[in-house]
Amino acid sequence: MATIKDIANKLGISVSAVSKSMNGASDISEELRQLVLDTAVELGYSTKRSRKTENRKLALFIENMDYLSEEDFGYDIVLGFKQSAFKNSWDVDVIPVTPSIQLEDKYDTYLLRGGYSGAFIVGFALHDEWMKQFETTTMPTVLFDNFIKYNPNTCYVGTDNYEGIDTAIDHLSKLGHKKIAFLNGSLHSMVSEQRQDAFLQAMKSHKLTVDKKLLAYGYYVADSARYHVPTFLDNGATAIMCGNDLIASGVIEECLLKGLRIPNDISVIGFDDIPLASRLSPALTTVNQNRSELGKCGYTMLTALISGITISKSLLRPKLIVRESTGQCIG
Amino acid sequence: MATIKDIANKLGISVSAVSKSMNGASDISEELRQLVLDTAVELGYSTKRSRKTENRKLALFIENMDYLSEEDFGYDIVLGFKQSAFKNSWDVDVIPVTPSIQLEDKYDTYLLRGGYSGAFIVGFALHDEWMKQFETTTMPTVLFDNFIKYNPNTCYVGTDNYEGIDTAIDHLSKLGHKKIAFLNGSLHSMVSEQRQDAFLQAMKSHKLTVDKKLLAYGYYVADSARYHVPTFLDNGATAIMCGNDLIASGVIEECLLKGLRIPNDISVIGFDDIPLASRLSPALTTVNQNRSELGKCGYTMLTALISGITISKSLLRPKLIVRESTGQCIG
Repeated sequence: MATIKDIANKLGISVSAVSKSMNGASDISEELRQLVLDTAVELGYSTKRSRKTENRKLALFIENMDYLSEEDFGYDIVLGFKQSAFKNSWDVDVIPVTPSIQLEDKYDTYLLRGGYSGAFIVGFALHDEWMKQFETTTMPTVLFDNFIKYNPNTCYVGTDNYEGIDTAIDHLSKLGHKKIAFLNGSLHSMVSEQRQDAFLQAMKSHKLTVDKKLLAYGYYVADSARYHVPTFLDNGATAIMCGNDLIASGVIEECLLKGLRIPNDISVIGFDDIPLASRLSPALTTVNQNRSELGKCGYTMLTALISGITISKSLLRPKLIVRESTGQCIG
Repeated sequence: MATIKDIANKLGISVSAVSKSMNGASDISEELRQLVLDTAVELGYSTKRSRKTENRKLALFIENMDYLSEEDFGYDIVLGFKQSAFKNSWDVDVIPVTPSIQLEDKYDTYLLRGGYSGAFIVGFALHDEWMKQFETTTMPTVLFDNFIKYNPNTCYVGTDNYEGIDTAIDHLSKLGHKKIAFLNGSLHSMVSEQRQDAFLQAMKSHKLTVDKKLLAYGYYVADSARYHVPTFLDNGATAIMCGNDLIASGVIEECLLKGLRIPNDISVIGFDDIPLASRLSPALTTVNQNRSELGKCGYTMLTALISGITISKSLLRPKLIVRESTGQCIG
């Protein structure tokens, strides 16, 4: 159990100031009183824990996403986060997560036992065990591409899908395309839902008609193209917007197999700008997510939450990268 | 001008503890140091202490918003911004702006001539001269409650209006209210548009029907209540959601004038939680915007932009504050 002297020493104030704070003396500010009480609780709960720089630790939990090679979507996210943390004297543990880890340990318990001040959550799916726990966690928690309603200890970080899709549709519209298909990612994902909604909004704001036969959810894999591209073509699509670059790579492959020329016969546009995008043939026009910045933004928001600023949502600018897979509409 | 002794008195600690905090002595906790620095800014203490970097200057342009008294909506926004900046050795010039200043000087020119690294824009209206210039500015620029599309040098900071309105409607819905009116703020404002959209979404997600006769735009003044409240009452409203607290104060006055009891006959709910809200009779249930955090968030995003992280949007959590103006629906 901490003594008054421990608290005084920790805060660098006199024992009498601590004592007066504890007794609610009128010449002590409310702010100092709160700080003394917080410190008392803190010292009482964990004896050896101090908030000095040597014990500053953050966790980065990652799932469903590769990050070890530069080719991987997660590589720059993890790197950006670690770089920002390092500059500010935080240690980071990168922890690959499985469903079974989430069943073995409660999220808050895992963090407290590990001495982490907060965590960055990357690649989690809606049905993950910890996703429910994030609704009530008391630990500062920043999630990449997932939004937790109401809990002020959580923050969502991502790229602005609305502006991203809007710039893509704007590009296609200026090239004369009117019959634009949308092959989205997986149905059960917050990001796919947003991109779907964004597509409808962008079509509307560009005064283009949405044809339901030109709308489909795929998965985050290239395969889905084979099922949907023929329908899109039968229904007169001159451009295909894809929910991500992997799907776009499948769409390109499928179109080429059918003997179509890209972009002469059909334009294709992706989302993410993974390293593969620039190496496809033709090189893929896509919406860039700056993954290094996403990692840095994740760090910035996590330290904001730790310092008590309840940011709920922080979005990065997307950037349209025009390459060879989009061109003037001829049809 | 405040002295070190004033800071010591306000916090109830010794002058030497304040002095040590300012000089970063190692036996002072980081928490106390932060508190001392915050208090120094609040009291207007200024010092010649040497800065690590010369010429680090930020501008805070403010218009259409009072900020000099603690009662004012802008007070804590400005203070929070200055406190965060001070801790990180940035100087801040708070510059009240008029339309004529915006006509005399181009925005970028003003910043460059003044040696500012970036600016926080507070209270600007959609028709302001500089608003057009923000679309192409090359200077890091964070705007409170205004969003500039596409320009990666700008960022929008505000409170999440969607979650704010949703928590308010959720509260009313749980009290049994079904006929909920919405008296919004001024028509030509991004925030009003968002709150309108948020109201429609929240009613839908709570399976409540929107009656167009219960929807109106007012202005950001209490007067508009007099024109709209009678219509709301004639059409059976049992609760009135208001676009801001000033409108809510007008609605309360109007209802009381008509002999209605609040909340027995009608519930009223505001948005913002300005200091006035808790002193109204009955005390106003409202959605709190944490203005100090908004200022701090503005600073955080501005330094992110300055360091090249293109955050486009950063939103704070709203918080429903339940007081006396809402109650069970009887009707």
